[in-house]
Amino acid sequence: MSEDELRHQRKMARRKEVQDAEVAAKTIESKGLLIVHTGPGKGKSTAAFGLILRALGHDWRVGVVQFGKGGWETGERRALERFGDKVSWHTLGEGFTWETQDRARDLAAAARAWDKTLELLADETIKLLVLDELNIALRYEHLPLDEVVATLGRRRPDLHVVVTGRNARPELIASADLVTEMGAVKHHFAAGVKAQAGIEF
Amino acid sequence: MSEDELRHQRKMARRKEVQDAEVAAKTIESKGLLIVHTGPGKGKSTAAFGLILRALGHDWRVGVVQFGKGGWETGERRALERFGDKVSWHTLGEGFTWETQDRARDLAAAARAWDKTLELLADETIKLLVLDELNIALRYEHLPLDEVVATLGRRRPDLHVVVTGRNARPELIASADLVTEMGAVKHHFAAGVKAQAGIEF
Repeated sequence: MSEDELRHQRKMARRKEVQDAEVAAKTIESKGLLIVHTGPGKGKSTAAFGLILRALGHDWRVGVVQFGKGGWETGERRALERFGDKVSWHTLGEGFTWETQDRARDLAAAARAWDKTLELLADETIKLLVLDELNIALRYEHLPLDEVVATLGRRRPDLHVVVTGRNARPELIASADLVTEMGAVKHHFAAGVKAQAGIEF
Repeated sequence: MSEDELRHQRKMARRKEVQDAEVAAKTIESKGLLIVHTGPGKGKSTAAFGLILRALGHDWRVGVVQFGKGGWETGERRALERFGDKVSWHTLGEGFTWETQDRARDLAAAARAWDKTLELLADETIKLLVLDELNIALRYEHLPLDEVVATLGRRRPDLHVVVTGRNARPELIASADLVTEMGAVKHHFAAGVKAQAGIEF
């Protein structure tokens, strides 16, 4: 091992000590988190589906509202059928204005999806609620940002909510507990490979 | 809608046209991808578990080798038990040097995990192979980087491989088809909330 490697390992060991001290200082045992997955890279919805899998492993009930078209998630939907009514899945979006150029339709779809969200927020059997592509509906002002942020802020103390989609609004980020930005470092589409089953959908 | 919003929507519509033309120009129908999830943020392993869920929805068999401790993934493991032998899961890491300060043990664990990887790479029933935290083993030179990159490069043409962990080596990124960097924008640990079941494990 080189000098550089040794130095790095010592640094890591010190960082671990600092982290352990930080963990020991934490006082809040548990809290329903508002989690945001945003950024231009892949993995925003996929990481949310990974959280669904984890939650199901703990026997939680999970709600999913898709504000986008959701035509692609055939793989996840079929896999989640194994968990029966542990998953309450609702695809209510129909695509967005830059595809349809029909703002009235977009507004109606977003309103339907938000109504379903309110219903699931009130369902005390649900412990994780995924609002897939809600960020897009907020970006295009299909829903009132203030109302959405305030409503999510008033969620039950033990309910975790995950919001996905590019261009998360700053007001939502300010209100969130955990925000991850997925950055695209390299993408196979640029090399001419088509979207394929099992990876993209 | 404001002028700014209208301008943005027109820009999005144009971008969509460009994307459609790009999709039409793609010529490679399918290819087993080398996917890397790296960066300091959350979601690297979780997005890999989301890909596992998608793959299972397509009736694929999936392999998982954990180069890290993997003590946390109780939720995913239990959920995946529903899929029986569709998932071949192996936790062979024991933690890393900055915790154990025992390099010989780390090297032995990495070698065992790599042997299992070679076995799963040769298993033609597997279509998705997740090498969780392999980046860490490469970062600390627990495995020869050249051999790992070359071996993954020689994978079957229809096998998808996902490598997770911080600090992906540039040589692996160069060889990958799809690289996503998870950036930490905001983290609830900083606000004193402890790691909790269903979200962190």
